[in-house]
Amino acid sequence: MQKLALLGFGTVGQGLAEILLAKQDLLKAETGWEGKIVAISDVMKGSIYDPDGLDIEKALQIVKKTGTLDDYPDNERLIRDLDSFETIEQTNADTIVEVTFTDVKTGQPAIEHCKTAFASGKHVVMSNKGPVALAYKELSELAKQNGVRWGFEGTVMSGTPALRMPLTALAGNEIKEITGILNGTTNYMLLRMEEGLSYEEALKEAQELGYAEADPTSDVEGFDARYKIVILANTVMNTVLKVDDVSCDGITQITPYDIKKAKTLGKRWKLIARVRKEDGVVKASVQPEMIDETHPLAQVQGVLNAVSFNCDLAGTITLSGPGAGRLETGYSLLIDLLNIYRNHL
Amino acid sequence: MQKLALLGFGTVGQGLAEILLAKQDLLKAETGWEGKIVAISDVMKGSIYDPDGLDIEKALQIVKKTGTLDDYPDNERLIRDLDSFETIEQTNADTIVEVTFTDVKTGQPAIEHCKTAFASGKHVVMSNKGPVALAYKELSELAKQNGVRWGFEGTVMSGTPALRMPLTALAGNEIKEITGILNGTTNYMLLRMEEGLSYEEALKEAQELGYAEADPTSDVEGFDARYKIVILANTVMNTVLKVDDVSCDGITQITPYDIKKAKTLGKRWKLIARVRKEDGVVKASVQPEMIDETHPLAQVQGVLNAVSFNCDLAGTITLSGPGAGRLETGYSLLIDLLNIYRNHL
Repeated sequence: MQKLALLGFGTVGQGLAEILLAKQDLLKAETGWEGKIVAISDVMKGSIYDPDGLDIEKALQIVKKTGTLDDYPDNERLIRDLDSFETIEQTNADTIVEVTFTDVKTGQPAIEHCKTAFASGKHVVMSNKGPVALAYKELSELAKQNGVRWGFEGTVMSGTPALRMPLTALAGNEIKEITGILNGTTNYMLLRMEEGLSYEEALKEAQELGYAEADPTSDVEGFDARYKIVILANTVMNTVLKVDDVSCDGITQITPYDIKKAKTLGKRWKLIARVRKEDGVVKASVQPEMIDETHPLAQVQGVLNAVSFNCDLAGTITLSGPGAGRLETGYSLLIDLLNIYRNHL
Repeated sequence: MQKLALLGFGTVGQGLAEILLAKQDLLKAETGWEGKIVAISDVMKGSIYDPDGLDIEKALQIVKKTGTLDDYPDNERLIRDLDSFETIEQTNADTIVEVTFTDVKTGQPAIEHCKTAFASGKHVVMSNKGPVALAYKELSELAKQNGVRWGFEGTVMSGTPALRMPLTALAGNEIKEITGILNGTTNYMLLRMEEGLSYEEALKEAQELGYAEADPTSDVEGFDARYKIVILANTVMNTVLKVDDVSCDGITQITPYDIKKAKTLGKRWKLIARVRKEDGVVKASVQPEMIDETHPLAQVQGVLNAVSFNCDLAGTITLSGPGAGRLETGYSLLIDLLNIYRNHL
């Protein structure tokens, strides 16, 4: 029985809790895996810890109704108000689910959470990009030294296995190039611009649909895709690529004229993240590229994401799927948990 | 050090041998895996066994030059002329690479090879569809009982991980439907018909390019795709589907008129293999379907294959890649070997 502590109880944390609630019995029957949430610690919503396991149905109901965990009922074991570090160190959880609001530019507080957890001999699963993009080498070595696992499938393409698939199922290939559409918001906007919208109209619509944030910088300037291509390069290609090594152009300069021109050439604009090994040198970029309509990435629709792996033996293999979503990202944490239990990558 | 015996030394067996020869050191450095081929037994080309390991470079040179293994040099350990069953039972190989010419309708001799190997406590990896499509339940239980592994990634989409990806990276999902383009020959023919060729012209071209065999029945009638959807259903969806349970229509009835009609509707014809679970009932079919041009499978080009998994948590995830090829299928055997060594699925 894996004992979980959730740091953060927002959309993703609640998504995982809902999945566990709905599928616990099925998961046990199919894979042997059993998990229970013993602690939740959220900066805004409060903190509860029951060493015997929390009543997750109740916690979800209460947080949805009141916005906090304050009304979660007391019992003789219940401890409140542990902060995130106390939750890591002082609870009986063996696995930390790191889903805090983390500043992607600094990777904090998630990086410190990882370090504390590894030092305490606890596994970590997370969907925060920052720590993996900024501190992959240090943190993965730390996890190894402490004999624990660090799962982060959800940092790239959510529950679509952009990291696990190449590591488990393409091992032994030399992956010469990875090319991807790793940001759904800009992919949606480019498609709407093909349908006649201006950049501003497309952005406004993406914001209204909840795809783009009020400050869309991270999406439209390509920063989000840049973090993800760094994660792919470092984990799948075994390079040591830093965020600043990646040249980065967003879609803000794309005009209706560019869109029309591409169409007349049988091409379309996509925001392409790319990393390539050439004679031992690694080159990476995020930029709008005009690609042929028959290119495997040309038909990636709406907010879908896709990634192609150019392999010396297996050929070019492309994976596409949702790049975001409550259940999808919740699932990315679950598959990390399951494969820690199964002792698989 | 894994000791391999190759049953069959045609395109696929030679492909694997070439990969091992070229990448042995790299594979050892990256994964720890080491393998050597101790025996090759081929009905037409002859049979050689050296308990210390064969000189694979020499064996490849000789078979390419002379068509047989007769000129492979003698040494004090070399034993010739073991048949396939003797090779399984009497050599020191711990893993059997089953790449014989096997009748897909009966699954023989591969099924008997599997049974003999499992009873001898030996792993089997293979790319022959027949045994998996016809005897999955029996053979997988037999392997389990004998504490050995049975790998067959290459039976569906060659080295593209259509089986391993869902098993390792989508576990915990309920997969409600699998939809695929699982036959490259017919996909190529349909695309050429869109470009104006008649069915007969498209078939002739596919034969000239080596995509279709002299007797194209298995491809154009959908039988090849049917075996593959049965394998996907039984291994990934955990159903007990038989080949005869799958309704099957090929592409022989598609006319230029059908092709034109689809185009005017913004659709295109694809030979779709499909299996779906509805209220516990499994329904499967192979048939030409007119799908929308924006459908994830609509843009699968040339002889590529693709498969979509409709998951309750992770969403619809699509994988595309080569469905055939010397190195690609050789690789499918390698990844099975690697993951036996790593004790991964």
